[in-house]
Amino acid sequence: MGTVLQAFANPEDALRNGGLQFCRKDPDVERCRRAHRNDMENIFPFLFLGAIYSMLDPSPTVARIHFLIFCVGRIVHTIAYLLRLKAPTRSVAYSVAQLPCFSMALQILLATTPYW
Amino acid sequence: MGTVLQAFANPEDALRNGGLQFCRKDPDVERCRRAHRNDMENIFPFLFLGAIYSMLDPSPTVARIHFLIFCVGRIVHTIAYLLRLKAPTRSVAYSVAQLPCFSMALQILLATTPYW
Amino acid sequence: MGTVLQAFANPEDALRNGGLQFCRKDPDVERCRRAHRNDMENIFPFLFLGAIYSMLDPSPTVARIHFLIFCVGRIVHTIAYLLRLKAPTRSVAYSVAQLPCFSMALQILLATTPYW
Repeated sequence: MGTVLQAFANPEDALRNGGLQFCRKDPDVERCRRAHRNDMENIFPFLFLGAIYSMLDPSPTVARIHFLIFCVGRIVHTIAYLLRLKAPTRSVAYSVAQLPCFSMALQILLATTPYW
Repeated sequence: MGTVLQAFANPEDALRNGGLQFCRKDPDVERCRRAHRNDMENIFPFLFLGAIYSMLDPSPTVARIHFLIFCVGRIVHTIAYLLRLKAPTRSVAYSVAQLPCFSMALQILLATTPYW
Repeated sequence: MGTVLQAFANPEDALRNGGLQFCRKDPDVERCRRAHRNDMENIFPFLFLGAIYSMLDPSPTVARIHFLIFCVGRIVHTIAYLLRLKAPTRSVAYSVAQLPCFSMALQILLATTPYW
């Protein structure tokens, strides 16, 4: 593994892998961290929305379309982020993945209206 | 949109929006990111706790009070964060929103005691 | 509380606690933030996987083993992170905690195969 490509956030990791000079920030690592953070911001709410939405007894076909759009949108988002694809590829993929989330949130809100 | 207010974390976004000099950190953007991160740290656990708590068949009125306190606390937290309200407004809102979470966690622990 | 140990991300918090010079980054605070972020990246998916896995009617003993390994792994991970234990203690604890997550994800995928 080429040491020149190494970067560690923690000194104890750098010490084990070449020395303290590798306890540093690296633009590519920061990019991965931003992609990962965006995943957390979007995928975790999707998991919650998808679970509650599934309890509303939706049409399996409609539910599959929701999950598929989100899944494809997020995969394209990750590829666009890591390969630095030309803007606005990443933003479009992000927005597409948001659509099924908004749709599920709306359906959950409508289904729970009687209990407000 | 005034270009002087722009800041992008990714060079490909800056290139499309005025130039590479806008690939930079901005104090207001960092503030929003901190508020968003705090939301993740608190709202995601709430969603899990709230879902499990709801399966314990709680009194709907008591459950509503739990959810309402959390909701108001988090909205005040976000307003206090983004408008830089005088400390400790934000911390108090944060702590108030934690109360229903602790209460729900405690009730879940108590309800599952027989199965330990 | 010794003021020399203080660090705040927000100027309004620093102003209330000694002055603007304490609006700064601190290596120990950054370390805690990294540990907390790693918790979010791992514990939130575990909560989702654990909830869905529990609906598959697993053997309570097997489920307990899954949850216990994750729990111990994450506690060791946090201790190793905050006490800067020698590498690769932290990475090993992280990997051990991943095992029950992979196992649960696999069992969920297998159980849902008929509905694909």
